[in-house]
Amino acid sequence: MATVDTVEYDRASPEVKAVYDDIMATRKIDRVPDFWRTVANHPPTLARLWEELKAVMAPGRLDPLTKEMIAIAVSATNSCAYCVNSHTAAAMKLGMDREMLGELMAVVGLFNKTNKLADGYQIAPDVFPPKE
Amino acid sequence: MATVDTVEYDRASPEVKAVYDDIMATRKIDRVPDFWRTVANHPPTLARLWEELKAVMAPGRLDPLTKEMIAIAVSATNSCAYCVNSHTAAAMKLGMDREMLGELMAVVGLFNKTNKLADGYQIAPDVFPPKE
Amino acid sequence: MATVDTVEYDRASPEVKAVYDDIMATRKIDRVPDFWRTVANHPPTLARLWEELKAVMAPGRLDPLTKEMIAIAVSATNSCAYCVNSHTAAAMKLGMDREMLGELMAVVGLFNKTNKLADGYQIAPDVFPPKE
Amino acid sequence: MATVDTVEYDRASPEVKAVYDDIMATRKIDRVPDFWRTVANHPPTLARLWEELKAVMAPGRLDPLTKEMIAIAVSATNSCAYCVNSHTAAAMKLGMDREMLGELMAVVGLFNKTNKLADGYQIAPDVFPPKE
Amino acid sequence: MATVDTVEYDRASPEVKAVYDDIMATRKIDRVPDFWRTVANHPPTLARLWEELKAVMAPGRLDPLTKEMIAIAVSATNSCAYCVNSHTAAAMKLGMDREMLGELMAVVGLFNKTNKLADGYQIAPDVFPPKE
Amino acid sequence: MATVDTVEYDRASPEVKAVYDDIMATRKIDRVPDFWRTVANHPPTLARLWEELKAVMAPGRLDPLTKEMIAIAVSATNSCAYCVNSHTAAAMKLGMDREMLGELMAVVGLFNKTNKLADGYQIAPDVFPPKE
Repeated sequence: MATVDTVEYDRASPEVKAVYDDIMATRKIDRVPDFWRTVANHPPTLARLWEELKAVMAPGRLDPLTKEMIAIAVSATNSCAYCVNSHTAAAMKLGMDREMLGELMAVVGLFNKTNKLADGYQIAPDVFPPKE
Repeated sequence: MATVDTVEYDRASPEVKAVYDDIMATRKIDRVPDFWRTVANHPPTLARLWEELKAVMAPGRLDPLTKEMIAIAVSATNSCAYCVNSHTAAAMKLGMDREMLGELMAVVGLFNKTNKLADGYQIAPDVFPPKE
Repeated sequence: MATVDTVEYDRASPEVKAVYDDIMATRKIDRVPDFWRTVANHPPTLARLWEELKAVMAPGRLDPLTKEMIAIAVSATNSCAYCVNSHTAAAMKLGMDREMLGELMAVVGLFNKTNKLADGYQIAPDVFPPKE
Repeated sequence: MATVDTVEYDRASPEVKAVYDDIMATRKIDRVPDFWRTVANHPPTLARLWEELKAVMAPGRLDPLTKEMIAIAVSATNSCAYCVNSHTAAAMKLGMDREMLGELMAVVGLFNKTNKLADGYQIAPDVFPPKE
Repeated sequence: MATVDTVEYDRASPEVKAVYDDIMATRKIDRVPDFWRTVANHPPTLARLWEELKAVMAPGRLDPLTKEMIAIAVSATNSCAYCVNSHTAAAMKLGMDREMLGELMAVVGLFNKTNKLADGYQIAPDVFPPKE
Repeated sequence: MATVDTVEYDRASPEVKAVYDDIMATRKIDRVPDFWRTVANHPPTLARLWEELKAVMAPGRLDPLTKEMIAIAVSATNSCAYCVNSHTAAAMKLGMDREMLGELMAVVGLFNKTNKLADGYQIAPDVFPPKE
């Protein structure tokens, strides 16, 4: 249902195939998701985005599950159906259960509400930005 | 700078004063932030929102710092200046440092980008929703 | 603070002046707000927008105050500071008081929350669209 | 199609069943909508949200139909398909007809346009916030 | 699947029929798209919107293809599925190919990311607004 | 006014200094804008983002001015004040004048309106996605 045909493995350029191989190896899956096969219509975007995603989602000061839950929070706030779906699946693989999802949704819902109360009442930041 | 005058402690009703007292005691602060003094113009919203916030932000399956970082992610996605400011201050109090904020922003930025790529390319969810 | 200089009455074209005169006469004000003096940089947009606004905000099946409150709801959801400010002022002139604003904000906040819960949980519409 | 299985009445806890009973009695319906059966995966959110919704949507200074139309305005601005669908159905039950919906959409569309003109031209609020 | 029945040509008022005829003649199509047949439920909105669209999308200082690509950028940022779909089709008719769409999506994705970094880090405009 | 102190040139790491030098050389400016000095708090994000921006904004099938106008469209739709400001300045340097900005704003405003009409009336895509 994407705007343009997806780029199938067999007809992909060597550059695109290399990214596909890395996606499947890294994720331990045997089929490249629609998202990546669609983005592959613009090979420089595919390569750059995949490198960025690997680097940003790697374990760091925040662990991978926390990062996936933040991805769900962003995607729900943006109403992106594809993204909520795929990040929820990814977070569940990493151990998020129904109760953790429930807490996450409670936080996401609450702050979408307070964001609009703050903007609707025109409340200015009441402290100077914190400096570390 | 709010739309309506804030409700100052001295002229607040007993119901509002009770919430103010609880906010200051819970947060260990001696002044009620502008947000709450503005919302106090509608006392039932003040009371309900404060109860919700205390319950949702209490330690649970997700810890308070994770919840504050999710609040920053939501507020940045919604471009709410007041909220980004106050949740960043709260997260820093709970131990978020410059590097953790950097990782958080990298995640928030990345998924705001992929959200729009997915919607801009009209990509449909490629798996059935995961069931726990 | 606008991107481009505002178009002042004295240096405006006759076409723009006619819109300015109509704005001041219709709104019973003696100064054209910044918004209109900025939009005037593109005269066809100024003329078309003012005609649309007059038509849409005229009393109809919905009264003008209800329409202004809907304008606040939209502007708060979009985090538009200029717009929240001006529509709140307009609604107050038409009789909205602090308590009505409080109810409005409670509704706006609540449904910004439920919107994200529905999208975050990937809930599909559960009834066929209603037909009148 | 929700992320997690809905909680069916028969396997619900007494706490959840009590909310379900109240939803069906209050709304005079004999089946709990998908939204609530999904949110029920996190019982404290279910209970708190239902209480908030009943309180916020009760007749007050704004009547229930006006509140439902504001809910449509928020949901359309947020592009929440589930929510537009359910609030449109609710507003129609309360008497909104095709012409009123047409006026509502004209207002929602107009101010989504002016919001972006104001932000795109970087127009600052031209009056101090109104004080009641 | 629209909220209200679409207004079919045969049962349309003369006013609505005239707009339909103009849409089909201007666009060289023999069926009025669902969007317009739905908006037709509120005839003044139909007439005003069609006139606005014809005027705004006419060749000017920006050419029609650039305008359609801007429409895609706005629609992707707003996650409007109907609109992304129809503007992508329109841009392709005007000559946008897969590579141009790829560049467009790269730009849209990038700035949705930087927008949130700027707001998430609370960065204030660093120059005074440019004046022409 | 940013959340964290900006990273000044003198105290920057060699890695960050290299990016700063490239920004100033590429843009022909002698001071690194606040945005980049703030993002520099997370050096990998700084380096990756600057490389992405240079690649995406380079002349391609779309010219740099068109890309900057698309950046304005995205930033206005997201209500990002910093971004509208900086992209408007950049587009003006590349030749955008008041009239072109006026046409751009007319397009951005129009489609923010139609996006909400399409979603508010629950209109489904009426054609299958175009395939190139």
